[in-house]
Amino acid sequence: MRMSKLVGRTIKETPRDSELPSHKFMLRGGFMRQYSAGIYGLLPLGMRCVSKIEKICKEEMNAVEGQEVRMPCSATRELWEETGRYQTFGKDMMKFQDRHEKQMVLNPTHEEPVVYLARTEITSYRQLPVMMYQVQTKFRDEPRPRGGLIRLREFTMKDAYSFHTSEEDLKQYYDQVFNAYNRFFKRTGCKNFVSVMSDNGLFGGRYSHEFQMLAPTGEDKLITCPKCKYSANEEISTSPFVTKKSVELSLDKVHTPNIKTIDALTKCLSISAEQTAKAVIFQTLEGIPVVSFVRGDLEVIDKKVRTLVKSEVVTATHDSIVKAGAIAGSTGPMGLNLNNCFVVVDYTIVKSNNLATGANEKDYHFTNFNFERDFYSKLNEVEKKKVIIGDIAAAREGDPCPQCNESLKETRGIEIGNIFHLGTKYSEGMECTYLDQNGKKQYPIMGCYGIGITRLLPAIIEESHDDRGPILPLPIAPYEVHLCVLNRKESIIQEKSEELYIKLTKQGIEVLIDDRDEKPGSQFADADLFGIPFRIILSPKTFAEGCVELKYRDNRIEPRKIKLEEIGNVLLTEIKDEYKKYNNV
Amino acid sequence: MRMSKLVGRTIKETPRDSELPSHKFMLRGGFMRQYSAGIYGLLPLGMRCVSKIEKICKEEMNAVEGQEVRMPCSATRELWEETGRYQTFGKDMMKFQDRHEKQMVLNPTHEEPVVYLARTEITSYRQLPVMMYQVQTKFRDEPRPRGGLIRLREFTMKDAYSFHTSEEDLKQYYDQVFNAYNRFFKRTGCKNFVSVMSDNGLFGGRYSHEFQMLAPTGEDKLITCPKCKYSANEEISTSPFVTKKSVELSLDKVHTPNIKTIDALTKCLSISAEQTAKAVIFQTLEGIPVVSFVRGDLEVIDKKVRTLVKSEVVTATHDSIVKAGAIAGSTGPMGLNLNNCFVVVDYTIVKSNNLATGANEKDYHFTNFNFERDFYSKLNEVEKKKVIIGDIAAAREGDPCPQCNESLKETRGIEIGNIFHLGTKYSEGMECTYLDQNGKKQYPIMGCYGIGITRLLPAIIEESHDDRGPILPLPIAPYEVHLCVLNRKESIIQEKSEELYIKLTKQGIEVLIDDRDEKPGSQFADADLFGIPFRIILSPKTFAEGCVELKYRDNRIEPRKIKLEEIGNVLLTEIKDEYKKYNNV
Repeated sequence: MRMSKLVGRTIKETPRDSELPSHKFMLRGGFMRQYSAGIYGLLPLGMRCVSKIEKICKEEMNAVEGQEVRMPCSATRELWEETGRYQTFGKDMMKFQDRHEKQMVLNPTHEEPVVYLARTEITSYRQLPVMMYQVQTKFRDEPRPRGGLIRLREFTMKDAYSFHTSEEDLKQYYDQVFNAYNRFFKRTGCKNFVSVMSDNGLFGGRYSHEFQMLAPTGEDKLITCPKCKYSANEEISTSPFVTKKSVELSLDKVHTPNIKTIDALTKCLSISAEQTAKAVIFQTLEGIPVVSFVRGDLEVIDKKVRTLVKSEVVTATHDSIVKAGAIAGSTGPMGLNLNNCFVVVDYTIVKSNNLATGANEKDYHFTNFNFERDFYSKLNEVEKKKVIIGDIAAAREGDPCPQCNESLKETRGIEIGNIFHLGTKYSEGMECTYLDQNGKKQYPIMGCYGIGITRLLPAIIEESHDDRGPILPLPIAPYEVHLCVLNRKESIIQEKSEELYIKLTKQGIEVLIDDRDEKPGSQFADADLFGIPFRIILSPKTFAEGCVELKYRDNRIEPRKIKLEEIGNVLLTEIKDEYKKYNNV
Repeated sequence: MRMSKLVGRTIKETPRDSELPSHKFMLRGGFMRQYSAGIYGLLPLGMRCVSKIEKICKEEMNAVEGQEVRMPCSATRELWEETGRYQTFGKDMMKFQDRHEKQMVLNPTHEEPVVYLARTEITSYRQLPVMMYQVQTKFRDEPRPRGGLIRLREFTMKDAYSFHTSEEDLKQYYDQVFNAYNRFFKRTGCKNFVSVMSDNGLFGGRYSHEFQMLAPTGEDKLITCPKCKYSANEEISTSPFVTKKSVELSLDKVHTPNIKTIDALTKCLSISAEQTAKAVIFQTLEGIPVVSFVRGDLEVIDKKVRTLVKSEVVTATHDSIVKAGAIAGSTGPMGLNLNNCFVVVDYTIVKSNNLATGANEKDYHFTNFNFERDFYSKLNEVEKKKVIIGDIAAAREGDPCPQCNESLKETRGIEIGNIFHLGTKYSEGMECTYLDQNGKKQYPIMGCYGIGITRLLPAIIEESHDDRGPILPLPIAPYEVHLCVLNRKESIIQEKSEELYIKLTKQGIEVLIDDRDEKPGSQFADADLFGIPFRIILSPKTFAEGCVELKYRDNRIEPRKIKLEEIGNVLLTEIKDEYKKYNNV
């Protein structure tokens, strides 16, 4: 390819609103352009990178017996109503009316469309297990698109769905895909990525993993153990908080005028936040209040509450708070109206003694609250069913690892893939069945497997760049070799550079030649912005010695002079060795 | 691939509503499934065919220096308002509101999005010519989706756009793409396709071609000359209608009570339809009446009227007819209100003598109307500007060829591609400029080039099938070889078939093995439905002779027995020779 014709201008200035290095460099290097909020087009350079990512992804999906399909982007409202997700997706789902005023949606994911296929095509246990995948556009009306291709409203995703006759079969296949994902990410040049346990969503199955690219700019908070390699999204990570068991003191009700926060309460009572029970009040989509309690120094993770109550939850309205029998700022377990609400209690509350908590009475709190003694033991069996004890707290740096007790580290990540155990949620929801060996109808057990194709490119640039531009791994770089030609106005240089370009291209090397009459500084700056791993420079000076200079974008070793007649073979060897590094996984 | 695991059931019965053979076979063979009107999903077999079509298409686009991009499916209303097409596309364009109640559209084509890129990325004549292409989903809310993948509301298209500094440069590139298209269609196995001149749309450029697959089931009417190979869409085809020039008789006004059609008029006056001038009344989108006249035996093509008046036209309302001074059923040129309307007159009217036509007076017609004598010569210069003379008639079988006078043939086609001269319509409309050699701003001249990727598969099946299923050309067949295994219950047969399957696959042959315990008839029926070109059959009988049977889906020669140890190499040779047939173009 000739740079003189390449569509995509390089830009010297840092574009406005580009906070992440990847966002900035992809705009400056002409990899992409923004059309509107969360909607981008890929220019030729970006497209070449994404095509290579897609190709490697398909190879790995085919290697685990995946069958490629193409499901449509649009669907009827009725399809999504079969599982109730037409309602629960809310505003994230883009909706439109067709010319006949029929309600349509733009699929944000494809569980419903794939089960639509499975329920006509899969009829017998003999056909299972089976996996279908596609590389397709997804639409999600994100409230806050950000970071260029990191969080888009229209993006390219590889999504895959598997169907099984048993949990064991799914688990075995799940592990295969897990390995395929590790291979895929390594083959595309990802370095610092981890697989972490994650929340697997409402009504989902029993286990799921996210693949996270570790990056300080990431949106997700991760908890990892430096010793045993335990790692989890903060939404799922659990920690056995060791709390002191002291003598239970007697419950006391104290007057706390205008005290409405944990911070104010600790000051008022001269205690630490660890000695309090904090209330956070949610409600289900049907409006049932959910009063949750966690130790005062910790945060409640709403997704964990959701999983325990088995329903989506949102922040409670004033009415819900009243309905629960709670008083905002003075909410505690005792005195709640258990006929009207759920109570979700974190393990830290159960294991602690003598906590301060709200009295459900304006300007009053209790001290020396003990969960079992003062609350739980006094409930009848019906009331006990409304109280759920579990893990709803966010883990923190320094907490003990649940596996090995080592002190946990906190880090940030960009989610680049995920694999989910879905169970029979969708097959049951859409009445998708097969006949087992005994001729009996069964619901297939499903797994699903996503990779954010367009997100992976900026995620890789986040971990692989310097202050001049991206340092792209060979397998996803737009070209293998960037040929800079200095003083092209000298006709012999122009002639020789053309010869070299054609010769290398004929050898099967992907070469981008800078055939513009730009100054060296400008050529090198653009080459840095493109991030192509190998760079050769032909100048009057090197030509006088019958050489070109070979440089590496990552500066792994010092530039070397290579004889003109040898450069083709040197590059072929270097490229081959470089691919080996990524593919030997 | 193992048929036991292949997603996609074969169906014995002809599905309802499937009129075209391709539609029927693609459903019966499990190539695709319908989700809703005009919305289909590709199952693995169909996806493999489409992937191969896409790959060949990209190769040909790259060969003419195309640069692949990926523009988004969605766009803002504002982008489409820049050219006015947000309005003119009407209901064919799917529209939606995002969560912030911003008006969005699903792009039905990408001229506007590509010029959006060009106007920031192309700044200098040095960058031109340049071509960008993509393989991307398009959305068009067709009022009548039909024929499975033939006319969809969501479909995959390859669209390409070129930018040039001069008409000559565009013309030269246009011819290159024309040749690339011919190569592409031949390489995908198209046989009976033609390139025809076509209407190139409102305000479009000066020339355009459609590639049409000749098929009796096609939607488009084509006019072709068996002698000089002239061919055109009926919307564009022109014919020099030879009409008798007789002595001009004197104009006569006759009473024609209740005569409102050409048919009634000819009976009433005992003349032929060729001796009448027929009026068809349109109006522009702004509501200006357009009264068109054509010889009574011919049909008016509205797209030709549109091109002559340079505005979209629709059927006239009653108010428009009144405004033009016309009387429905008695409309003629004389007496129209030329201040309020346009008059478009077909050449056949100008060249004919003594026609019967309306008198713009209820129940009256003129006879012996002569265009020049009775109408045109009597207009002043201002009025003459409102009268447009041109070709607006549909050509018919038997008309003389405009190039060689041979009698034209009528045939039908499925449009599989098109190439358009766009001129500067979009670059001017969106203020996309570059600086020429003199530093002066210029609008790039554009061409655009489309291929209906998902439509091509059924179009090929339309021309290539028998009554048992598709006969797919090797380059787009889902697999190269279909291996039928009879009496697989005999363990030696099962063992040998597995060995053979693995051996052939290792030789790089794409093999589909029928590893189900189906009877021969059922296996052969499914193989016929899949349309894979080479078929080998392993049975106890052939195995006893150490052979397999080699059959051809198109029955080009009789089945042959081939030694088991030779079949791999025989297939490799046959496959190689077969590809050569398609690729030597």
